[in-house]
Amino acid sequence: MFESYLRNVFEKAPLIHCITNYVTINDVANVLLACGGSPIMADDGEDAVEITSICNGLVINIGTLNNCTIPTMFNTGKRANELSHPVILDPVGVGASKIRTDVTFKLLEEVKFSVIRGNISEIKTIYQGTGRTKGVDADASDAVTEKHLDETIAWAKQLSHNTGAIIAITGAIDIVTDANTTYIIRNGHPMMSKVSGTGCMLAAVIAAYCAANPDNHLEATATAVCVMGLAGELAYDRLVKNDGGTSSYRTYLIDAISKLDAETLKGGMKIESR
Amino acid sequence: MFESYLRNVFEKAPLIHCITNYVTINDVANVLLACGGSPIMADDGEDAVEITSICNGLVINIGTLNNCTIPTMFNTGKRANELSHPVILDPVGVGASKIRTDVTFKLLEEVKFSVIRGNISEIKTIYQGTGRTKGVDADASDAVTEKHLDETIAWAKQLSHNTGAIIAITGAIDIVTDANTTYIIRNGHPMMSKVSGTGCMLAAVIAAYCAANPDNHLEATATAVCVMGLAGELAYDRLVKNDGGTSSYRTYLIDAISKLDAETLKGGMKIESR
Amino acid sequence: MFESYLRNVFEKAPLIHCITNYVTINDVANVLLACGGSPIMADDGEDAVEITSICNGLVINIGTLNNCTIPTMFNTGKRANELSHPVILDPVGVGASKIRTDVTFKLLEEVKFSVIRGNISEIKTIYQGTGRTKGVDADASDAVTEKHLDETIAWAKQLSHNTGAIIAITGAIDIVTDANTTYIIRNGHPMMSKVSGTGCMLAAVIAAYCAANPDNHLEATATAVCVMGLAGELAYDRLVKNDGGTSSYRTYLIDAISKLDAETLKGGMKIESR
Repeated sequence: MFESYLRNVFEKAPLIHCITNYVTINDVANVLLACGGSPIMADDGEDAVEITSICNGLVINIGTLNNCTIPTMFNTGKRANELSHPVILDPVGVGASKIRTDVTFKLLEEVKFSVIRGNISEIKTIYQGTGRTKGVDADASDAVTEKHLDETIAWAKQLSHNTGAIIAITGAIDIVTDANTTYIIRNGHPMMSKVSGTGCMLAAVIAAYCAANPDNHLEATATAVCVMGLAGELAYDRLVKNDGGTSSYRTYLIDAISKLDAETLKGGMKIESR
Repeated sequence: MFESYLRNVFEKAPLIHCITNYVTINDVANVLLACGGSPIMADDGEDAVEITSICNGLVINIGTLNNCTIPTMFNTGKRANELSHPVILDPVGVGASKIRTDVTFKLLEEVKFSVIRGNISEIKTIYQGTGRTKGVDADASDAVTEKHLDETIAWAKQLSHNTGAIIAITGAIDIVTDANTTYIIRNGHPMMSKVSGTGCMLAAVIAAYCAANPDNHLEATATAVCVMGLAGELAYDRLVKNDGGTSSYRTYLIDAISKLDAETLKGGMKIESR
Repeated sequence: MFESYLRNVFEKAPLIHCITNYVTINDVANVLLACGGSPIMADDGEDAVEITSICNGLVINIGTLNNCTIPTMFNTGKRANELSHPVILDPVGVGASKIRTDVTFKLLEEVKFSVIRGNISEIKTIYQGTGRTKGVDADASDAVTEKHLDETIAWAKQLSHNTGAIIAITGAIDIVTDANTTYIIRNGHPMMSKVSGTGCMLAAVIAAYCAANPDNHLEATATAVCVMGLAGELAYDRLVKNDGGTSSYRTYLIDAISKLDAETLKGGMKIESR
């Protein structure tokens, strides 16, 4: 089943509009090409709504939000909703500043998101309606462990119920859930946290998977999370052989996504449903 | 002949001012260093015109145009014209939104461009005075094939006549033409379309080649197109040996440009004139 | 002694707020992760001051300054001063345009910098109170040579005295000085000038080293300069083995920083004090 979602992305080559931070925007563009999609970036008020209209999905990443891009996030989100395009929210650093928190909650009121992807601290901030995240990385004290897994799934399901969005919490253990069904994914490698933007990249890959698999957003999202995690494992294997560091790892990660076929994905997914 | 244009870039190290999209801006900077030039980026109203004045050439790439950068494109373009610097237009996504189309046509009225570089869909939009491009990639139905080659050259020549600019249409077959002479280039590799920004990079390389070869813009542009295409071939050879993916390919592409010497270029160019 | 500064960065993982140009911002983020720190980027007026407050250090790089980010540089700089965070100035292209020069001198009046890092042309512009730099690269005629070394150190010390900041002049020979003590560093490789942003990356690494070593900013800065230079040498060794070009070199440079341990640093530092 899951591997067919990968094939659909390569076959349909969905065009994904990204309003994303300019720190990792190039990796986001390249990872979209690597996974079988196609990127387009536009965040100017006049330009962006039209661009959304010719696309198949939208990513809103608030990593370097500013006065120009904030209104664009709302306008493109609403336009994508009208067109029934999947819209993915990546609430980078929500809880770390008032404006990030305010924009996130206002977006959740005015735009219907298909998926919200964040680290545990970000998603917890959204669930609790308030929070103090440490920056753009998850707080170690928040980490999803086997011990807190059931508890985390319970509030993630509740958040999905409240927002109508699939919730994707990514970290050492990944959780992808709607109000009913949860996927727990144990792919990935700690080295991924040493590359800036693996979360941003994943949000874009999720958008491509949802756009190419419109009838199964939950499973498409879970597959995208597996793709990124498995690529992180394959990249690490290659890193060890080549004696590289964090920048080689970044290259190998995107390489692995570009080379991943359905067979390898099927054999490498570490996923269970609850 | 052509190889001397390469030598001139390395000898003169022209300083190229780029007003370019922030998706691929880092690759643009690095490819300019790789090809023998030197990059400087500035798009603030007050800053940019002064920066243009100390440079040897200007690239205007509309990929992520916005309210701040649009006036800067006009002001720097006019200043570069006053100084007789080569000015290259890369009309990314023209036809995909009203503002991209409007800005492109207004730029063509107010700034004299030495070269306009785009994919076939973008250049066709400019020629027809209107168009609906699919995004930032060429529409497959527009692709330049051997069958349509003569026809494409005919209207590209006409567009060069109308605008006074050299027209560079890049894709599987590249066309570089002024109103009289056309170069057809068959270097390159399909893998180049899996890296974001190869077109943006080429526009910057063209600027460096024109700045370093002021008396032969047409041949300098054709050479730059060969350099990029041949680098794409050399990068692919290396990719196969190293079993890499799309991100390694990006690295190898810029590597190949940095290592390309006049001899290799001479031996590898697939160019004919008509 | 010096190697303990490296260990402190990996142990404390300081969070560094960067207001930096969007040309090399991704490399700056990744080099911070590689050296043991953690990056966060924010330059919007409302967002940035709050983000500074949760960080351990601040970098102000004027490479692509604009009307939105200039006020943010002042506000975050003052906030970081209130919190006694180290603040690093990277005056990219000061002297190349009026606004770059004006902003730099106004920042020096209103913000207390721990370290000012630039190439010789940029730092000379600041010392002389005026200047015409050639762009963002040092003018060859300014190059620090053994012959001018004593003279350069003398005015760099004076500039440190005038500004209260440590002065880091980087090039073939690096000088790190306060009003009393000077370190001369001969690590590095000419190939580093073929990668865009090695200076920007170094400014961020200096910030991480100062934040993790609050009692020894001078030695921490000198160590950071050695780390970058030694990484440049190690990257070159690897480049030769792998027959790569400038883009591989960029990857190897960040790789080398991520893999550098205290032992290798101790053995490889080419540093003397005067």
